[in-house]
Amino acid sequence: MSEPLILHEYAASGNCYKIRLTAALLGMPLERRPYDILKGETRTPEFLATVNANGRIPVLQIGNRFMPESNAACVWLAHGSPLIPSDRFAQADMLRWMFWEQYNHEPNVATTRFWLAFVGRDNLSQLQLGLLPGKIEAGKAALALMDEHLGRDEWLAGDGLSLADIALFAYTHVAEEGGAFRLADYPHVQRWLAAIAAQPGYIAITD
Amino acid sequence: MSEPLILHEYAASGNCYKIRLTAALLGMPLERRPYDILKGETRTPEFLATVNANGRIPVLQIGNRFMPESNAACVWLAHGSPLIPSDRFAQADMLRWMFWEQYNHEPNVATTRFWLAFVGRDNLSQLQLGLLPGKIEAGKAALALMDEHLGRDEWLAGDGLSLADIALFAYTHVAEEGGAFRLADYPHVQRWLAAIAAQPGYIAITD
Repeated sequence: MSEPLILHEYAASGNCYKIRLTAALLGMPLERRPYDILKGETRTPEFLATVNANGRIPVLQIGNRFMPESNAACVWLAHGSPLIPSDRFAQADMLRWMFWEQYNHEPNVATTRFWLAFVGRDNLSQLQLGLLPGKIEAGKAALALMDEHLGRDEWLAGDGLSLADIALFAYTHVAEEGGAFRLADYPHVQRWLAAIAAQPGYIAITD
Repeated sequence: MSEPLILHEYAASGNCYKIRLTAALLGMPLERRPYDILKGETRTPEFLATVNANGRIPVLQIGNRFMPESNAACVWLAHGSPLIPSDRFAQADMLRWMFWEQYNHEPNVATTRFWLAFVGRDNLSQLQLGLLPGKIEAGKAALALMDEHLGRDEWLAGDGLSLADIALFAYTHVAEEGGAFRLADYPHVQRWLAAIAAQPGYIAITD
């Protein structure tokens, strides 16, 4: 693999961290290019024209090509590695958790953290304040669903650590930031978080 | 492939249709098992215990195993077929569009259709009515982003029809239901919709 890899990112974003963690576990070097999403730096005409027309980070730049969507970037990085199970059902099941992460977990667990720990409750709009209780409830349901699964199985998909675990680790392990969620309520999730943090090559979100 | 395939579904859901369309294009027979989501039939204790703890359809049952998440079920069905590009970048790019579909397109284009054409504006909560303008705006932005891409490339990812096209066809081709979106505003999307509907084996959402 000779093409240089550049991660267009906002460091505290769990979606960006997923990509850094995947690359670290695989020993693949990444150059990091920061943007301040609170200042709208991913909505500039230049960013929209060259990096991502969708105006969002992360984007993994592979040579002169751009891969938006955190989970797709992780799949590109992990191609042919043990982080993607080779079994047909396990591979689709890994993606099942990753789609679930983007639809049921991230919009609730991550958005709640972002609103409460980054934007601040006092700065939320009336609409956001109206959405918050439902997002906290749905976030708790998402964590409970993971806990129930991880009480039966060691990993989310297949027989070992996969991208499903990395994708869901990203926002789960910082879910307490903002104060809406208590990880002590999910003991199997806590066991699983510790197992991921003990992987060779692991890096923290603050690294 | 000897295991019987059962689709647990609500027929008018684009997420369920994706799976039927993928199976039809691949010539794979599916048994269909309907649930009325407006009556809460996917939230019963039996459904949660056996089919999907997340309380949602579609779920593809493969023998005695269950695969929730529409896009993951499509990946399972299309394993080893030309609907999944073999090239590393194109394969991740296909998933990029499918993750984008679940995060940026479905919650806006599909939810707007569901609220206006199925639930009915008069039955929406104050919170839903507050969200509606933002969802319509974000849905238009999603359709415009597709149109811009399809003005340059024939398909969403790689060199031919892939699961990315099927996943995004599902809710795009019925986007006008409910009256919030006008497909005539997106001519490249219209060309692409027609190309998908002309595929051998194509079935309609109402079939």
